[in-house]
Amino acid sequence: MSQTLISAGKKRKIKLLADSDGKFRMMAIDQRGSMVRMLSKVLGVDPSEIKYEDLARTKMMITKVLSPYSSATLTDPVYGYPYSVDYIPKDVGLLLAFEETGYEKAGSNGLERRSRQIEGWAVEKAVRAGANAIKLLIYYRPEASDETLEHQQNFVKFVGQECEKYDIPFLLELVGYPLLEDEVAASPDPAKPTNDTPVYAKRKPEIVRRTAEEFSKPEYKVDILKLEFPADLKYTEEYCKGTFDGKNREHVYNLNAVKDFCKAVDEASQVPWVILSAGVDIEEFVENVKFATEAGASGLLCGRAIWKDAVNFYPDLEAMEKWLMTSGVNNFKKIYEVYTAAKPWFEHRKFKSYADAGFGSSSEWYKNY
Amino acid sequence: MSQTLISAGKKRKIKLLADSDGKFRMMAIDQRGSMVRMLSKVLGVDPSEIKYEDLARTKMMITKVLSPYSSATLTDPVYGYPYSVDYIPKDVGLLLAFEETGYEKAGSNGLERRSRQIEGWAVEKAVRAGANAIKLLIYYRPEASDETLEHQQNFVKFVGQECEKYDIPFLLELVGYPLLEDEVAASPDPAKPTNDTPVYAKRKPEIVRRTAEEFSKPEYKVDILKLEFPADLKYTEEYCKGTFDGKNREHVYNLNAVKDFCKAVDEASQVPWVILSAGVDIEEFVENVKFATEAGASGLLCGRAIWKDAVNFYPDLEAMEKWLMTSGVNNFKKIYEVYTAAKPWFEHRKFKSYADAGFGSSSEWYKNY
Repeated sequence: MSQTLISAGKKRKIKLLADSDGKFRMMAIDQRGSMVRMLSKVLGVDPSEIKYEDLARTKMMITKVLSPYSSATLTDPVYGYPYSVDYIPKDVGLLLAFEETGYEKAGSNGLERRSRQIEGWAVEKAVRAGANAIKLLIYYRPEASDETLEHQQNFVKFVGQECEKYDIPFLLELVGYPLLEDEVAASPDPAKPTNDTPVYAKRKPEIVRRTAEEFSKPEYKVDILKLEFPADLKYTEEYCKGTFDGKNREHVYNLNAVKDFCKAVDEASQVPWVILSAGVDIEEFVENVKFATEAGASGLLCGRAIWKDAVNFYPDLEAMEKWLMTSGVNNFKKIYEVYTAAKPWFEHRKFKSYADAGFGSSSEWYKNY
Repeated sequence: MSQTLISAGKKRKIKLLADSDGKFRMMAIDQRGSMVRMLSKVLGVDPSEIKYEDLARTKMMITKVLSPYSSATLTDPVYGYPYSVDYIPKDVGLLLAFEETGYEKAGSNGLERRSRQIEGWAVEKAVRAGANAIKLLIYYRPEASDETLEHQQNFVKFVGQECEKYDIPFLLELVGYPLLEDEVAASPDPAKPTNDTPVYAKRKPEIVRRTAEEFSKPEYKVDILKLEFPADLKYTEEYCKGTFDGKNREHVYNLNAVKDFCKAVDEASQVPWVILSAGVDIEEFVENVKFATEAGASGLLCGRAIWKDAVNFYPDLEAMEKWLMTSGVNNFKKIYEVYTAAKPWFEHRKFKSYADAGFGSSSEWYKNY
């Protein structure tokens, strides 16, 4: 039994992210670009007219009502932390985002995505501010140019090293995007490629699997992977007739195949992994959580699927709070019901058991640490 | 209403030390020298024969059973953390000790006490390991030589600066000791001066008050003071006839005076303060907590008063666990009953309210932090 599978600080802090069983029931409220778009739609104004306080207040209200239902809450240091941190209870872990929202366009067709950090922010600042983990979102397509792949990989390595330095868990979120010619051609508006196409849906399982495989390599120093569901349930034989959003689609696989995709991701991921919600509705996300946790996921880190409808009430904060306390809480409860199959992080094959996830306790520990 | 009374990191982390009402119900299990002496007595061997594992196991068992009853647990990085941290629940804050156990003798009569840090340990390490606060114990007598006062004051300033650098709360524990000629002369064995004399008991209120006053100065950057009870209840008119330990003593004040001593300490302390137990029995400590919290203390950080009898069972860990789960838990419950009068830390006059304890939220926060 090895005693050095995890460092002391990472072990203590990962514990703060999970529930008492070691399963992750985390909430994301670190959205920036997507929240600006939601608010601009709700207020009927141009995105450029959305003010700092619009985001800060929306995040504050969502955090206030829903953070207590999460095992940990992820927010951003720009609009989230300053107004919301007081509403994150002491028994709820705190994750802070590191990446700037959005991406820089790159590559020969201008569709590749490169990430960058929030200017003026640092892992060291997050640690000082009380973060129990650093979250980094990376857009990733294994088929992108070498330059873009290298840029993204180096960024991940940098953050991995910083997290090692401060002995804080590194949670890496990986998001694919339409990039290849046939994916663009299949989009209703090729100027605005979408992942809601049969071509992309069919390719998604392999994108998620390969990406998980890449960033499981020890050189990235990732502790938890936050992954997309490795299929699009709206393109399954069983759910393609508008089950989730009323829209008919062709099917490209069935639920049996989806189970295999989830298994493949679990095999590819050499660290505990959680599922993200990517803005799907709660009913679809509940299915995602079921499939993912049955395949070995350690839980979820979920944002819009839980709270997105609350934004419709802005700027009526009272109405927003009312919706969150009823429907929002109810969404969380739907997840409670299905996430129990999640694998505790310390039972991932990297560790096997909590006792096995040792950091080398000894009388010399404090000297050598 | 000022918005910069506390920094962001300190505010988040102080919250992790208190219960949900902002009152401190903290447990100390960072004893080293005193625990060696207890174990040597129990095992009937010389203190030099007490092994690392004897301390580590004793601390582990006490932490395992009682930490869940505390709002935060203080342990040491040498014997405590490596074996015990896994038993500190996620909703219980973690404090780590900074000072080496004991002291260096100094001064013309060799009775002055100078503190030093644990060699090989650092605030930076404590932060990495997941500490939510740094605890420093300082022996202090305002009557000591200038050299000793300066040494102790400089040590406190150093730790205060380190805590500011990492934005982690600084909890300073202050302990007086017999030093002056009449205190030594009053001791049954002048070669081993004790504070269990009428002379010292009479002087104690002023020692605690003056010490609290000194280390309330902003230059020390202390966030919470951990103070001795500013009187010895065994020397009060009401309790001097052996109420707590069966031993008769003369009285040097009464309970009305004790109330005044507590008020004076509360007035002297410019930051929230908690009461330490200094090895007194639980019944006496419960009285200490009552008087202190009624005068304005924000709670307690208590060790031996709760768990010391458990050590008598060592090395029978099973018997120790049984005692802790019954009598130990019961001791904690006795404290629960009386500490409710404690003043939430954010209602201390330094802050006045939680909202008032602001750190300067703004759209530029993350840049300037």
